[in-house]
Amino acid sequence: MTKILTVGEILVEIVATTKGDGFREVQPLKGPYPSGAPAIFVDQVGRLGLEAAIVGRVGDDDFGHLNIARLKADGVDISGIDIAADEVTGCAFVRYRPDGSRSFVFTLAQSATANLVLTEAGEALLDRCEHLHVMGTALSAPGMAKVALQAVDRVKGRGGTLSFDPNIRAEMLHKPGLRDRLASVLERTDIFLPSGEEIFLFTDAIAEDAAIEDLLSRGISEIAVKRGARGASYFAGDTRLDVAAHDVEERDPTGAGDCFGGTFVALRLAGEPPETALRYANAAGALAVTALGPMEGTSTRAALEAFLKEQAGR
Amino acid sequence: MTKILTVGEILVEIVATTKGDGFREVQPLKGPYPSGAPAIFVDQVGRLGLEAAIVGRVGDDDFGHLNIARLKADGVDISGIDIAADEVTGCAFVRYRPDGSRSFVFTLAQSATANLVLTEAGEALLDRCEHLHVMGTALSAPGMAKVALQAVDRVKGRGGTLSFDPNIRAEMLHKPGLRDRLASVLERTDIFLPSGEEIFLFTDAIAEDAAIEDLLSRGISEIAVKRGARGASYFAGDTRLDVAAHDVEERDPTGAGDCFGGTFVALRLAGEPPETALRYANAAGALAVTALGPMEGTSTRAALEAFLKEQAGR
Repeated sequence: MTKILTVGEILVEIVATTKGDGFREVQPLKGPYPSGAPAIFVDQVGRLGLEAAIVGRVGDDDFGHLNIARLKADGVDISGIDIAADEVTGCAFVRYRPDGSRSFVFTLAQSATANLVLTEAGEALLDRCEHLHVMGTALSAPGMAKVALQAVDRVKGRGGTLSFDPNIRAEMLHKPGLRDRLASVLERTDIFLPSGEEIFLFTDAIAEDAAIEDLLSRGISEIAVKRGARGASYFAGDTRLDVAAHDVEERDPTGAGDCFGGTFVALRLAGEPPETALRYANAAGALAVTALGPMEGTSTRAALEAFLKEQAGR
Repeated sequence: MTKILTVGEILVEIVATTKGDGFREVQPLKGPYPSGAPAIFVDQVGRLGLEAAIVGRVGDDDFGHLNIARLKADGVDISGIDIAADEVTGCAFVRYRPDGSRSFVFTLAQSATANLVLTEAGEALLDRCEHLHVMGTALSAPGMAKVALQAVDRVKGRGGTLSFDPNIRAEMLHKPGLRDRLASVLERTDIFLPSGEEIFLFTDAIAEDAAIEDLLSRGISEIAVKRGARGASYFAGDTRLDVAAHDVEERDPTGAGDCFGGTFVALRLAGEPPETALRYANAAGALAVTALGPMEGTSTRAALEAFLKEQAGR
């Protein structure tokens, strides 16, 4: 049985190796790196040894095959990845500005991903999985969103569980219908995985405590808040757990939240207590930022254990 | 009056800086470079100081604006470039193999270019130009091809002239309808600009002499054959002119044929004799290969003169 499924974008990332604003000048780049928030999430689940699958769509080009090869090598079930002839795999060009913010050129709007539909293989995965993870990015384009919402209906309808990471950049929130789609997924969410300020996306509360209380009162079972360099927190009922961030050399924060989420969800579904899941997820996020490239920093359980042991001994 | 118009793809090129086969591994890259065969052609015409314009379509992103800024800076009329909101500018990833051949990932099939339509500004350019240049690449996608063929009808119908560079990679010839479109443009061509073996694309002749004779008998006024490292030749009626290639350090041959074509057509339309046009075009092609990046090697008239003078003194 495939346990953990996600739906959404699979793409390549091209990283600028100098800091600056955008791509209006010739500059050194590095890539293509396998990427896409749902893909990174599911790759992290696969590397932890859990059954994992993704429903997605790529072009029949080097970029699509690069992603498929990586996911397969990391143990992910790739049967739900549709390879579209005569379409192209989406690209994300990313450049860090000197202040740490990022500028992007995305080609997803016109790529195989934008035309995602549920194939027979995708349907089969929906019927087999026990848990679905939804990334807010997968809700940002109408086609992908339709499939993701279908998946939510099917998996929840069958008694499966749902995790949700809003994972949304502020400038995307104006997209028509996006906020409604995010809210409709939140309504059915069991495990909520916001980053920092995202806890305020769906509540009128002003203080974090009140926001958490509001969200938990709506049927969400547990919340893990990712705070980047300020660690992470877990909330469920009256329980609150906090972990501090690890002191690591940051090379590329892209993908860290996805690795955190993949680890947290995988360990919770494997029956680990929240404390363990939070600690390992926090470690996975830390290790992710030390690697250049969004999917290059996914970790095995052995690597997380070694890292936590080394950190405890410091 | 806008004298020389072209229609077709405007894109960015991302160049692999190591040799190898394709893009299934992370590697150092450089870019984005402004590119697209018609864009390079028209940029070369603009740099020679002739009135030049292009009908094309880009996304409202850094890659589109990078191209527009370059063409404008080089004197090209950019009024016919449609900036498509919510669409993306096409990308070409290029990597040289150790044997000098190239592998590509193209995203053009799903990009703003693929949806090229004739805008009001484009119509105005068609009514004003005296000469149209068609690149075979612009005929490779149905939407672009439709606009290019409309342009041929309009410009030839008004008594304008037509130049044509097949500029087609062998693996593209299987595309449905492409060969017919190429043939229909050739039928109305005044200046034909094939590279090497492309002279045999539209004739049953086996020897070059016979192929040239056949093509000239069909209404083509003049033919300039680009032979890369073996120079170039000119044919019209009973005239044959040959020039040897210049001995330059090749850094990137991409775009050299487009620079040759832009220079040849510009000088012929400016009233220069074939011998001068051929010599300058040959120099433009030579200078183009010394620069990394497809549009980086376009030349001013002063640069071509200086280069020819220096070469004559060797």
